[in-house]
Order: sequence, then structure tokens, then C-alpha cells
Amino acid sequence: MQAHQARTEGVLMEIMPPHDLAPTRLHEAMRYAVLGGGKRIRPLLAYAAGEAAGAAIETVDAVAAAVELIHAYSLVHDDLPCMDDDVLRRGKPTVHVQYDEATALLVGDSLQSLAFEALVRGAQGSTLFDAAAAVRMLARASGSRGMAGGQAVDLDSLGKSLTLPELEFMHVHKTGALIRAAVWLGARCGAALDVRQLDALDHFAKFMGLAFQVVDDVLDATASTATLGKTAGKDAEHDKPTYVTVLGLDEARRLADELQRDALEALEAVGDGGSRLAQLGRFIVTREF
Amino acid sequence: MQAHQARTEGVLMEIMPPHDLAPTRLHEAMRYAVLGGGKRIRPLLAYAAGEAAGAAIETVDAVAAAVELIHAYSLVHDDLPCMDDDVLRRGKPTVHVQYDEATALLVGDSLQSLAFEALVRGAQGSTLFDAAAAVRMLARASGSRGMAGGQAVDLDSLGKSLTLPELEFMHVHKTGALIRAAVWLGARCGAALDVRQLDALDHFAKFMGLAFQVVDDVLDATASTATLGKTAGKDAEHDKPTYVTVLGLDEARRLADELQRDALEALEAVGDGGSRLAQLGRFIVTREF
Repeated sequence: MQAHQARTEGVLMEIMPPHDLAPTRLHEAMRYAVLGGGKRIRPLLAYAAGEAAGAAIETVDAVAAAVELIHAYSLVHDDLPCMDDDVLRRGKPTVHVQYDEATALLVGDSLQSLAFEALVRGAQGSTLFDAAAAVRMLARASGSRGMAGGQAVDLDSLGKSLTLPELEFMHVHKTGALIRAAVWLGARCGAALDVRQLDALDHFAKFMGLAFQVVDDVLDATASTATLGKTAGKDAEHDKPTYVTVLGLDEARRLADELQRDALEALEAVGDGGSRLAQLGRFIVTREF
Repeated sequence: MQAHQARTEGVLMEIMPPHDLAPTRLHEAMRYAVLGGGKRIRPLLAYAAGEAAGAAIETVDAVAAAVELIHAYSLVHDDLPCMDDDVLRRGKPTVHVQYDEATALLVGDSLQSLAFEALVRGAQGSTLFDAAAAVRMLARASGSRGMAGGQAVDLDSLGKSLTLPELEFMHVHKTGALIRAAVWLGARCGAALDVRQLDALDHFAKFMGLAFQVVDDVLDATASTATLGKTAGKDAEHDKPTYVTVLGLDEARRLADELQRDALEALEAVGDGGSRLAQLGRFIVTREF
């Protein structure tokens, strides 16, 4: 895991415009938002899915960078005052606090463009990688029918009580879509899997996407700001419906375990190649930050 | 021109998620931001460049929609309070006024994703169209080394006096990059042009991008809010350096004419196929809104 995290950092470092390129303040802020922090869960999933599909690791770099850049842009925009209004992220001041709101807006916008630019690098010198299909997948996963749509539902849910299916709809979009895209795209960098196995990977990703969010909700309610590197207890403060408010803490923990079990079961169809994905699945549920 | 504007509207209408698809408020706001307004300059340039390159019109639809979606997202974000803080656009309340700031933020984010999704539709059934190259071009033209970067320089210039080269640097990025991409991408939908002619088209686009901005600055200083459909006199109000403040009104008008002449001259290498581009070039400089 640490090797893949370091690899992600290196790839991102190379893709990001240098800090001394004009406009320098924007480029410095983009690097601030992306480099030197984060669990890199989505790149890790992409690399692990690529491994399961027999892909050479360097062919997955473009996908790993692209999904992390989309994730990073969403954090910068979500932290803005008109959204979650947060001041702390990855243990540092958020971008609009460190710079200003307009810069944070442009940082997010520019990181999104950069994600698509990074993604099609994967098409260079690869006969396997279908650039158009990859762009379509990443665009859907991040747009109004994916991540951004989930964020809209999230904002709309503040102060309301949701049913479990409504909560699930929100998170399948907000967090799930990009996690699923990371696995889908990583798996398309290799050729070792058949349709049934690719389908199994997609099931794994769907379960893990939900499990990830359930654990996030549990941690927001139980961990400290220092451990999380972002403000803890924000959900309750914003009167936001979560798995903890809907199910209670114990039931939410049980659901995370159940989703993990389902995810690992789906993975069986992939065989030995899925062992690193299984390891990541366990990390996602047992993590403490 | 009207036929191509109507075609653009139809293509966008089909690409936009339906207003009754969840999340409905976000999708309704996206449609509000994009449909039923605007001069559609960038799609018109794409169609005209496609025509010059001998492309069948339907093969240019994807490119035309993509550049307009990028433009539309940039308007929604530029109008936000932390940026230009404008309340009127295309004769209607801006998105954050009609909806709210968080929705406007997500509308812009989602339109950017949709632009890339729309763009790669051009790859379907076309052997000419290189999806990876097209995505790279659109991403660069819209990101920190293009449009968003120009916007960052623009914000940074408020209250400062710029030299003509500094002003040009800003606009080559802020407006010029996407106009150039529209022509570049449109021209790649056909196969009738050789390298020298493609190069000539690119020169045309560079000159027209600048001319477009010079005219924009002149109109902001001379036209009425009613004619423009957006707040007139904003540049002076924000103490923003423009071609009018740097050169004066007469000199700015002369520069626009000169740029148009250079643009049309570059176009000569393209031959008869460039006649619609020439017509657009004249419209861009003589328009009154």
C-alpha cells in the first residue's frame, strides 16, 4: 500500500503544472490541494484492479492520477463556504482559507480539466485502453449523474430525516460512483479478466463504495479532529442525515462489516489476482482515519 | 448562422440530462444555464472550421456541444459572488441568483464533466476523430494553462494597470484558448485540409480570439445592459484593466479592425472552404451585443 501511495504521489507530482509556471498563485494552490496528503484510496483501488487484470503497473498510472484529481477537486469545492464551509483538510487549512475563495474555485475547476488530460495519457502507446470509453466513465462518475449529483442531494438533505434507501441513493452517487470508476478504469488497463470477472469486480466496488461511506459516518461521530485531519463531528453540527443517525452506531458498524463480507464474496470470482483488492477492502472498513 | 445556432440548441437539448431526472433541481439549473440563449460563437466557429475541413455537419455536433458546455460552465462560475459577482446573464438572473450558490457551483462542475462526455461522442463511428487528442486539447484550453488560468490572472489584475503585452497574455488564455480549441477541434472532424492550412486556421483563431475580447471590452464601455443582456460598465466599476482603459476607445476599435484583417488574411490559405469562417470573423468584430 505504501509503495502505491508513493507511486501516486510521484505521478501526481509529474502531472501537476510546476509552481513557478504562470499563473503561479493558481499553480501553487493546485499543488497545495493535491500533493503531500490523503489516503489515496481511489488510486490504490485502481492499481489493485489493474493488478487483478494483469496490467503492468505503469499502464495504470494515468487512471490512478485521474481519479485522485477528480477526488481532490471535489474536496476543494466541497470545503467552500457555500457548501460544507470547512477550514481543515488533511491536517492543513483548506484551500480557500490558505488562499482565497476565487482561487479555490479555479483550483477545483482546473483540477477537473487536468484529470481528463491525465486520463487520456493512458491511451498513449496502449492498444488496450479505449480513451473514449474511459472519458465517458470518468465524466459520468463525476458529473450530475454521479459525484456532483450526490453532493446536490446531500446539500438538499440537511435538516431532513432520510430513509435508508434515500441515504443509500445519495452515497451511491456522492462517494460510490468515483470508487466504482477507479476499479472499472483500473481493470480496463489489463486484459486478464473475462466479462464475468469484470462484473464481479464491479460488484466488489459497489459494496466497498457504500462500506467506505458507512465507515466515514462512524468515524465522523467517534474519532477526533486530530486523528481525521479534518473537522470531526461536522455531520451532527450540520444536522446531516448519516448512517449513524439513521441506524445508530452499532447497527452502522454491523452494516459496514456486512458490506465488506459481500464485497469480499464478490471478489472470489476473480481468483488470486484479487488479493490486493481484498486487502484494500479490509483496510477501508478497519481504518481509523 | 441561425441554422447553426438552432442546431447547437438541438444538440445541447439532447445531451443535457432531462429536468425530471434526479437530482431534479440540479438538472433543472443545468438546463437553465445552458439552453435558450447566448450567441453560440464557439459552436459556430467549430461548425465553420468543420466545413472548411470538409466534415459532414453531424460529425461536428459533439465538438460544438463540448466547447459551448465549457463556455457555459465558465460563465456560471465567473458570475459567482467570490468572482465577478454578477446578477444578470443572457438577460436572465444568473444561476446563483435564480437558485443558490451551492447549486451554481455544482452546475458548473457538472457542465464541465458533461463537456468531456459530449466530446468523446465524436469518437463514435469516426475513424478520423482522435478522442485522446481532442480531450487533451479541450482540457488544456479550459484548465490552468488556458481559460481558468486567464481568469486567475484577470482576478489578480483588478485595480492594477497592465501593459498591452500583459493584457494580451491574460486574454490569450481567458478567451482565446477556448476559441482556438473550437476551431482546432472543428477542423479535426474533417480531412480536407493539409498541415499548412490547419496552421492557417489556427492563426485565424488566435487573431479572432483577441479581436473578440477587444470588442467585448469596447461593448462593455459603450453598450447598454439591455442590449448586452448582462450588466454593462462592469469593467470600470471593478477597476479592471481592459483594451479600452489601456488604449482608449478609438485605438481599441482600430486594434479590433487590425486583428480582423490579420485573421482574414491568414484564412486565405484555406481557400473557398473558409468563407463561413470569414463571415463569422466579420460578425465577431461588428456585433453590437
